[in-house]
Amino acid sequence: MLAVTILGNNSALPMHDRHPTSQVVTTEDHLFLVDCGEGTQIQMNRYKIRRSRIDHIFISHLHGDHYFGLAGLLNSYNLTSRTEPLYIYGPAALKEILDLQFKVAEAHLSYPLYFHALDEPELLVDERKITVHSFRVRHRIPCWGFIFREKPKPRKVDPDKATDAGVPTSFYPHLKEGKDFITDSGVLVKNELVTKPAPPSFSYAYTADTSYDESIAKIVSGCGLLYHEATYLDEMRERARERFHSTAKEAATIARTAAVKKLILGHFSSKYEELDAFRQEAEAVFPEVELAREGVTYIVKC
Amino acid sequence: MLAVTILGNNSALPMHDRHPTSQVVTTEDHLFLVDCGEGTQIQMNRYKIRRSRIDHIFISHLHGDHYFGLAGLLNSYNLTSRTEPLYIYGPAALKEILDLQFKVAEAHLSYPLYFHALDEPELLVDERKITVHSFRVRHRIPCWGFIFREKPKPRKVDPDKATDAGVPTSFYPHLKEGKDFITDSGVLVKNELVTKPAPPSFSYAYTADTSYDESIAKIVSGCGLLYHEATYLDEMRERARERFHSTAKEAATIARTAAVKKLILGHFSSKYEELDAFRQEAEAVFPEVELAREGVTYIVKC
Repeated sequence: MLAVTILGNNSALPMHDRHPTSQVVTTEDHLFLVDCGEGTQIQMNRYKIRRSRIDHIFISHLHGDHYFGLAGLLNSYNLTSRTEPLYIYGPAALKEILDLQFKVAEAHLSYPLYFHALDEPELLVDERKITVHSFRVRHRIPCWGFIFREKPKPRKVDPDKATDAGVPTSFYPHLKEGKDFITDSGVLVKNELVTKPAPPSFSYAYTADTSYDESIAKIVSGCGLLYHEATYLDEMRERARERFHSTAKEAATIARTAAVKKLILGHFSSKYEELDAFRQEAEAVFPEVELAREGVTYIVKC
Repeated sequence: MLAVTILGNNSALPMHDRHPTSQVVTTEDHLFLVDCGEGTQIQMNRYKIRRSRIDHIFISHLHGDHYFGLAGLLNSYNLTSRTEPLYIYGPAALKEILDLQFKVAEAHLSYPLYFHALDEPELLVDERKITVHSFRVRHRIPCWGFIFREKPKPRKVDPDKATDAGVPTSFYPHLKEGKDFITDSGVLVKNELVTKPAPPSFSYAYTADTSYDESIAKIVSGCGLLYHEATYLDEMRERARERFHSTAKEAATIARTAAVKKLILGHFSSKYEELDAFRQEAEAVFPEVELAREGVTYIVKC
């Protein structure tokens, strides 16, 4: 299970009851928070996110609309006496800012906080069922995207067929890994005769704030779901370029080149009260597109 | 005209659709912002505050629920190309935090920002019709309160009576200041015969976060309106003391000792979903009490 809940879909200036960037990525074992604009914890209340379950937080870059809600969230964890460790991945200076904020408040955290400074693209998280990698995107200041990939899942044993073929249950873990079985009498039981294929493993790529950059398409190639910012429409592509942002058309072009299964657009400029034009513009290039809507959970399906 | 609009009435952990501390003080010539918890700019949108008109911001102390919304607001001023100067009064380390946040974002402000570090009690603002003074309160970390006082207003000239008495309009400014007039023929025109008394000058005191401290009653003595925090009810007075906060009863005791005209309670702990008990507890000590309600404007009337 891999799903993304949008907490903020707007660019920096909060308007039209839209909020700065934040998303929750839900997996079987984890809640990951991706960026944490001002008001994220209030959005979590609104949309009933169980924030105590968040164990890893990823901050893409240090423009305020992507991290000004983090210190408040960390503070609230303290007020609710959190004890579980929390892992934060972000630009190195983020730690300096947080340390200063804790120092002046004379705050002592009730939980262990582990900070990892982002630098070269790397494997950040390697848990039982999921990995998270970072990659660089092209913004005015250093900025990172993140890819969440479910690990290959086990094949499903058909117990009736396995029993009939004489495979003991003690061998099931090997069956799940795709191994064949050889009976005591030397008969080969081909794995695919007694198992069903593993369910697909899903992936989600978050490209943060970025200007149009074809190299991103390679990195996110084949992902089940791609979030790509679309701050502007094509009519403002010059401004997008100047400000290291993208248009809906450019986001869709990356999605098409990368052959992802589905695209979500977000980080809409406050200039736009209505968002339908973003979808229309992107659909002309890449039909499987959705607009990031706050409070909506997008389940990765293929 | 002196009025206070509550943007956030809760203590640090945002809950029950209540938000961390922030208030707008409206005078004839100014909008002052007092504290700026996370989400303040979003609350400004909700309650139609014309944030571009804010020219002075006062930050009482560096617990996050009183300033985590400031960097976002300053950023939004930049995005809306503000050019008017902005004056900020706060603990010295606030400037260090803001400077670091601007630096990492490579942000260059579109407007002049003047920062004044709070220290000893002093006159912070001395404008045409209003003054603002700081004073110390008793909290876990250094913390300041603020008093807003309208300057004495001019007496109102009665033009009919003034003309009948032979006072030329060129002398009206002196009449407004309370001066008598002497006609060319040496007749004394007593000021009060040709003017009406000046309207009253109002005052508002904000005590930020503080434990019960009788010395505050002297400082805010006689104010038209007093905001005093009441994080807890009397049943939790021990916790209030430990955490350098106050109870509703203590806030009311300060109001009674100070002989203010009216008291507003705020900074309610998230423990309390219902707030009526705060009013009841305070009323028993000081009847003229209101609960700070978000979005409500309290006009100072006496």
